[in-house]
Amino acid sequence: MEQILALREELEKALSNLQLPEQPAKLYQPVRYTLENGGKRMRPVLVLLGCKLFSEDISNAIHPALGVELFHNFTLVHDDIMDEAPVRRGKPSVYEQWDPNVAILSGDAIFIKAYQELLQTDKNVILPILDLFNKTALEICEGQQLDMDFEQRNDVSIDDYLHMITLKTAVLLGASLKIGALTGGASEDQAQALYDFGLNCGIAFQLQDDILDVFGESKKVGKQKGGDILANKKTFLLLKAQELATGKTEEVLADWISSSNSSTDKVEGVTSIYDELNVRELAEERMWRYFNTGIAALEKVGANEKWKSVLLDFSRSLMHRES
Amino acid sequence: MEQILALREELEKALSNLQLPEQPAKLYQPVRYTLENGGKRMRPVLVLLGCKLFSEDISNAIHPALGVELFHNFTLVHDDIMDEAPVRRGKPSVYEQWDPNVAILSGDAIFIKAYQELLQTDKNVILPILDLFNKTALEICEGQQLDMDFEQRNDVSIDDYLHMITLKTAVLLGASLKIGALTGGASEDQAQALYDFGLNCGIAFQLQDDILDVFGESKKVGKQKGGDILANKKTFLLLKAQELATGKTEEVLADWISSSNSSTDKVEGVTSIYDELNVRELAEERMWRYFNTGIAALEKVGANEKWKSVLLDFSRSLMHRES
Repeated sequence: MEQILALREELEKALSNLQLPEQPAKLYQPVRYTLENGGKRMRPVLVLLGCKLFSEDISNAIHPALGVELFHNFTLVHDDIMDEAPVRRGKPSVYEQWDPNVAILSGDAIFIKAYQELLQTDKNVILPILDLFNKTALEICEGQQLDMDFEQRNDVSIDDYLHMITLKTAVLLGASLKIGALTGGASEDQAQALYDFGLNCGIAFQLQDDILDVFGESKKVGKQKGGDILANKKTFLLLKAQELATGKTEEVLADWISSSNSSTDKVEGVTSIYDELNVRELAEERMWRYFNTGIAALEKVGANEKWKSVLLDFSRSLMHRES
Repeated sequence: MEQILALREELEKALSNLQLPEQPAKLYQPVRYTLENGGKRMRPVLVLLGCKLFSEDISNAIHPALGVELFHNFTLVHDDIMDEAPVRRGKPSVYEQWDPNVAILSGDAIFIKAYQELLQTDKNVILPILDLFNKTALEICEGQQLDMDFEQRNDVSIDDYLHMITLKTAVLLGASLKIGALTGGASEDQAQALYDFGLNCGIAFQLQDDILDVFGESKKVGKQKGGDILANKKTFLLLKAQELATGKTEEVLADWISSSNSSTDKVEGVTSIYDELNVRELAEERMWRYFNTGIAALEKVGANEKWKSVLLDFSRSLMHRES
């Protein structure tokens, strides 16, 4: 979509204009490394789209968009340490390229830079934006902690899981849109409806991620197929399968989960149980329910129709991605 | 000083009223643990004193004071991981009591809570306060990185060292006073003079810390005497001694620095070189020069004279401490 590409280009330009000191090099090089490592820039694009719905002029939204992107990158730098994830977007993550201390401190610096960017907007909307941002940032910390807690727990319910992904992933999509809407002059109600759209789509996207990890084409997904299965990650699919499995199937699934086997045998074994129990369809059904709830929230927002349809198309494209 | 005690009491009351969720426990328990572990609360007291200089009513300053204290605790939680410091205020540091991941994430949460507190003040001063706070926070990250860099470098000058302690320690004392002054209605010039006072005193306090580490009474200092010497920490004393030492003294000092000996022999050996070269007096002379520069900045501020003298007494008491 050309509009999305144009917004992304504006963002890249603004990001490349971001002023960062040269020294101390070990503090600021990892910041540059992280920002130059790309990514889809989905969250800052949502900030700009949120603004476009209410104002053609997006100059008030550019810096908050950078703020949201910086914040997202801060969470990745710290999460990669905690999750022991040595690769990020095809390159060594910061703690791997340097060391964990560098990742802690440069992550902190990215977080502070995020606040500096958020402050560069219309004075009339800074305070509601910061309130929302702080609330969201704390929720994301809670989501990350829950995600780590779930690894040790055997009593995670599907509702627990949905609550966790809401905090860890979805709230930032909602907040990105709402922040953008506020910079564009939206009312609180309009901005909140966009938040609801982003939140529900965010949950749908995460369910989509879970499904693609097992059923996507691994070349397109760009990571090992079934990585979640090998890691015994308590996704919607696994939790649903555990809920539905009985008799022999329940035993076989439990055996796979307790096994330290990390070959494609395990991926195939668990996937065939998923097939037997129809959990892919159940996950997709739930995913589309969240997505449609989001769409309904978006549709009732009185806003520029052209940009509403760009946002709709963008969200639909994310739902039909194969990776 | 009764006024300081009364301010500290107000702070403790406000801190105990801070709302923190119960769950996830691993995120918020370390936050409580950190805040309940006391400390001198010097920085938030400075915020309140900065306000008192311009306004008897300190209600606008209480939350920013908590914000500064939270921020300071955030830096301690993360620094302790980086510095591998297992004890903080006589108790296990967060990464030691839980683990480094818990310390990273709960540290992040404390940082966000700091911003939430900073925002709860008079709307007219929030933006200058946040600008100063962000600038200061980034400087503190730079100071921490320089401190870590210096461990690996053999070309650290005394100016480098003074620059590092300015960033790592002194800017937050200046910022605390300036933030308080702004909440009390000070002009930019008045608030900046208080910043200059706090900055210069902060450098003096750090030089005092360096001196007490070697020459203080270890019972009162509450940590091992000569800890900096055993860690080969490049303090003002060591850098000055390296600058002045010649001949045999230079050789003996170099031997001690390159030795892995970590007994009291090393502390006594290096201390006797410090005595020989008179570096304690040189450090004290420099310390008082910074302190007096600070006092001169304070004296020219037009502000409530009673509270100016409380602030003066408070800073003098910190200069004459034995630990």
